[in-house]
Amino acid sequence: MRLSKTFIKTLREAPKDETAKNGELLTRAGYIHKEMAGVYDYLPLGLRVIENIKTIIRDELNKLGCEEISMTTLQNPEPWEKTGRFSDQEVDIWFKTELASGGELGLAPTHEEPIVEMMKSYVSSYKDLPIYIYQFQTKFRNELRAKSGILRGREFLMKDLYSFHTSEEDLDDFYQKVEEAYRRIFERLNIADCTYETFASGGIFSKYSHEFQTFLPVGEDTVYYNNDKSVVLNKEVYNEEVLRDLNVTDEKFEETTAAEIGNIFKLKFKYTEPLGLKYVDEDNSQKTVYMGCYGIGVSRLMGVIAEKFADEKGLNWPETIAPFRYYLIGIGENGEKEAEKFYNGREELTLFDDRDKRPGEKFQDSELMGIPLRIVISDKTLAENSAEITDRKTGESWKVSLEKLFDSF
Amino acid sequence: MRLSKTFIKTLREAPKDETAKNGELLTRAGYIHKEMAGVYDYLPLGLRVIENIKTIIRDELNKLGCEEISMTTLQNPEPWEKTGRFSDQEVDIWFKTELASGGELGLAPTHEEPIVEMMKSYVSSYKDLPIYIYQFQTKFRNELRAKSGILRGREFLMKDLYSFHTSEEDLDDFYQKVEEAYRRIFERLNIADCTYETFASGGIFSKYSHEFQTFLPVGEDTVYYNNDKSVVLNKEVYNEEVLRDLNVTDEKFEETTAAEIGNIFKLKFKYTEPLGLKYVDEDNSQKTVYMGCYGIGVSRLMGVIAEKFADEKGLNWPETIAPFRYYLIGIGENGEKEAEKFYNGREELTLFDDRDKRPGEKFQDSELMGIPLRIVISDKTLAENSAEITDRKTGESWKVSLEKLFDSF
Repeated sequence: MRLSKTFIKTLREAPKDETAKNGELLTRAGYIHKEMAGVYDYLPLGLRVIENIKTIIRDELNKLGCEEISMTTLQNPEPWEKTGRFSDQEVDIWFKTELASGGELGLAPTHEEPIVEMMKSYVSSYKDLPIYIYQFQTKFRNELRAKSGILRGREFLMKDLYSFHTSEEDLDDFYQKVEEAYRRIFERLNIADCTYETFASGGIFSKYSHEFQTFLPVGEDTVYYNNDKSVVLNKEVYNEEVLRDLNVTDEKFEETTAAEIGNIFKLKFKYTEPLGLKYVDEDNSQKTVYMGCYGIGVSRLMGVIAEKFADEKGLNWPETIAPFRYYLIGIGENGEKEAEKFYNGREELTLFDDRDKRPGEKFQDSELMGIPLRIVISDKTLAENSAEITDRKTGESWKVSLEKLFDSF
Repeated sequence: MRLSKTFIKTLREAPKDETAKNGELLTRAGYIHKEMAGVYDYLPLGLRVIENIKTIIRDELNKLGCEEISMTTLQNPEPWEKTGRFSDQEVDIWFKTELASGGELGLAPTHEEPIVEMMKSYVSSYKDLPIYIYQFQTKFRNELRAKSGILRGREFLMKDLYSFHTSEEDLDDFYQKVEEAYRRIFERLNIADCTYETFASGGIFSKYSHEFQTFLPVGEDTVYYNNDKSVVLNKEVYNEEVLRDLNVTDEKFEETTAAEIGNIFKLKFKYTEPLGLKYVDEDNSQKTVYMGCYGIGVSRLMGVIAEKFADEKGLNWPETIAPFRYYLIGIGENGEKEAEKFYNGREELTLFDDRDKRPGEKFQDSELMGIPLRIVISDKTLAENSAEITDRKTGESWKVSLEKLFDSF
């Protein structure tokens, strides 16, 4: 992408009402644009990061045999009334609206009810199970306050996976596979070393659920961890009984803040029972389907990663999700010519700063935008038949020969 | 994709409340699932068709230098009030909702107002223009009636492109480039020969706008066309004055129904003026930005193409957007073995019917799902060291040697 051709600009000033670092930096660097608190547009660079995160998640879920679909925002109240979740007393973050032809609708804050309803068209026999279905879909939650940039959205992108099984063992088995897939996803996103599987409340249907919490100063959750961080507990389950249960009463726990980027939950019959999702088993008896659900906050992840790696100069993306691998600058007539040559054929990898601006400004923007490697070709580097590479992470610079640059970059 | 592993099933019965052919066939073939009238989920096959359509549109728009972003559903009333379009009297298809913290919001039926507002952060000088931005985004329209399957959605997917210019000539020039891109898109979608650029009302800011109308019995629009279809008019502009204006008073026009799959519109100052999107020109004077907008109904296109090519046996996708190229069936022990071999490495091209079902049922499903080429490998074809290929479009069957099958399919 040529910076001279894109509409985005880096902004020197942070937006006044943006107090979260991720919101401030992502806006200044031209990745997002704020519509209102908790509601953001994704600009070309931001959309590329989102798509890169989706690609990693999709890849790991497809390996488990999961199938991708896309469900709707508008929600018929009926199935939600059967589970008691359409009531604003029960679920206090609904956005609701009215059909012109009459009747109240909701905007989906999550999709358990409609997916269970949908499964009634596709599940009749034990032979139809197991089923694993996911989507990347916008969720709507009417949060009273939304001050954390894209960490807490009123409108945000989530990956939600639902699984359906004939037995608890099969659910347990798949649950574990998703745990492992989540670990691989967080490794590929470069946040495995600060993201911990955390015991949280399982509601009344299972002892615990698991959250994936990334330790982060601005995180909105409070968690407790033991010395080697082998046991991490959400505040809601940090009590004597649970510590006894997990056999860690002797250990010392410390408190920290964290951002929940994923959760996995054995729902069992919680939604399939009230909505009547049944199958006929081998012995011809009717049985209720076991269910699990597994979320990852995609836009929140982008915010968490932005916060996590940012420094005083700006953003700093892991290579796996950076919108571009290279930030290319040509200086001087010959430098610009060589830069054009490098860009040609590498348009998808390279953010080419071909704007009519001073090199200093380009260097600053390359740092603010957080592109992993900066490549500078100038008359000075050309005198040594080379280009200068700078690593955004370490700040380290080194020379590579033009030959190597054109061959292996 | 293995049919034995997917949750979707073809349904022998049409849903009772589904009167449109596209809705009926797409549901029976397992492409979509209805949440309520005009609100549909996209299942794995349906999502693949949608993504294939998006890929073609994206490719042609990127060639024009357009940039992709993603805007929001939730709409702050402010900019819409400035253009007079938040009023339910003015725009009668709004879904509206309330923020928990107070204040009314709308669900975006289109995105002119927020994109003009956004551009105020990025446009200040003539050097910043032109700008071309598009998105694939869900739109919400509170239609009183929605009986045409995915041809008229209350929640539907649209591609909307917006352009910003310093002069009318530049807008005219880009408008023409989009016209040409649209023609290439419709060619790649195989509907160029039944889709006509149609004169429609231009409102008060330009004489005409242009719609792209696909002639179709269930289309909801009425259009008039001359003998060689070189002039097509929407009913709203079919009058003496317009015929005189276009110099076609001598010609005979016939009436037909059509589905509007796209439109392009020279908005000029319609939204940029009331919202105050200005730039400083070379001579230092402040000027208002020229604007154009260009839509394509993505989910509607899928419905139009489904209707257009369907026959009594089911769907019939053009190769360019079919969810898979091949529908693969192995019959008998050796046939199944060879089919497995063929499938290996062609998972993305092939819908493999490896279910434990009779061949007749598989043949029927291959036709209902409308996959372009059916490949059957049976003990019978293997006796001749071949496979049987059947073209969904023509019904024609022919043999290819296994060697050719493995080499060139």
